[in-house]
Amino acid sequence: MKIGILGTGNVGRTLAARLVELGHDVVIGTRDVAATEAKAEAEFPAPLRTAPEAAAHAELVINATGGQVSVAALQGAGAENLAGKVIIDVSNPLDFSNGFPPHLAVCNTDSVGEQIQRAFPDARVVKTLNTVNAEIMAYPAKLADGDHTIFVSGDDADAKATVTQLLREFGWLDIVDVGDITTARGTEMMIIQWVRLMGPLGTLAFNYKLVR
Amino acid sequence: MKIGILGTGNVGRTLAARLVELGHDVVIGTRDVAATEAKAEAEFPAPLRTAPEAAAHAELVINATGGQVSVAALQGAGAENLAGKVIIDVSNPLDFSNGFPPHLAVCNTDSVGEQIQRAFPDARVVKTLNTVNAEIMAYPAKLADGDHTIFVSGDDADAKATVTQLLREFGWLDIVDVGDITTARGTEMMIIQWVRLMGPLGTLAFNYKLVR
Repeated sequence: MKIGILGTGNVGRTLAARLVELGHDVVIGTRDVAATEAKAEAEFPAPLRTAPEAAAHAELVINATGGQVSVAALQGAGAENLAGKVIIDVSNPLDFSNGFPPHLAVCNTDSVGEQIQRAFPDARVVKTLNTVNAEIMAYPAKLADGDHTIFVSGDDADAKATVTQLLREFGWLDIVDVGDITTARGTEMMIIQWVRLMGPLGTLAFNYKLVR
Repeated sequence: MKIGILGTGNVGRTLAARLVELGHDVVIGTRDVAATEAKAEAEFPAPLRTAPEAAAHAELVINATGGQVSVAALQGAGAENLAGKVIIDVSNPLDFSNGFPPHLAVCNTDSVGEQIQRAFPDARVVKTLNTVNAEIMAYPAKLADGDHTIFVSGDDADAKATVTQLLREFGWLDIVDVGDITTARGTEMMIIQWVRLMGPLGTLAFNYKLVR
């Protein structure tokens, strides 16, 4: 699949590397290609393009930018390049401006997933993967042989089916469709507990298994 | 242990029944004993008392009132009857005033757990059990032989040790101390995902196992 990833941080890089490994045609979108290359500490796992080029290239776009800047980053990619496409939103609106613990810039009655869907009504947003760190997102089998849960939220059933297939390629075994895009509130709000568990658990490699 | 439970709803009743079964000396506190008895559809599993009587009786108080009225309910029990005591807070501030899905009346930068600790600085508040329904709170072994996780938040290590012991009596096997009372934000915010999972899962008998 032709995939455009927006975001050049750890999440974007890790997902890009994994998708390349799985045989997908991946490009990474960034606002300023030259500037991103100049400050990069390591080679990128997929070609860098401008955000509009990356989105135009893609059948499926992954938002791996910070939740507070996601709508702006996607606007930079151009609504016309996103129309009709699946957008996987893996972001969380973590705000560290008051230090640790962070709070969420949006929550409770709204979410980044919903903000993106409202801003790009012709795109088909699927919120997923935002409840775990980058390594577990891309390589779920590294934890407990993959016996743990990932959630999917979105308004479009076909888009969720496409994303579910991609999650299976990553190695996800327990994929739970929570419902429409408003259920992104729940998974985004779970990140506050995640952030507080890091310390006591002494690792970032953890997740939940939904027991029922 | 002498235990006073504030709250006569499903959570209070279920916890009372379980604690009586475990041999504890339990009373249930309510604002108006006669009124609560008059409207009760079933016998209570432990004697009803006024809230101040229930708190005065107790070495350990359980707040099983709704999160939005918890501080007021505890004030009704009297700060002097709570001083020095462990308060287990199992509440969530779910607000259904706009229908379904509910939102939280407090979250993100505060929590009911913290509100109670601030209102009763001489009490030792431990937030726990608020991530599951009443049946699973009291009988964790009914789900997956108890192989799932419950969280504990609070400022007082001795209070958390007392509560952890009580949770073990209930049958909890995986008890995770997340940290101080501000970590109650994380577990209270998890309830939004819980509320949205009810429908897709078709049951209230579910929980997370923390995989690490």
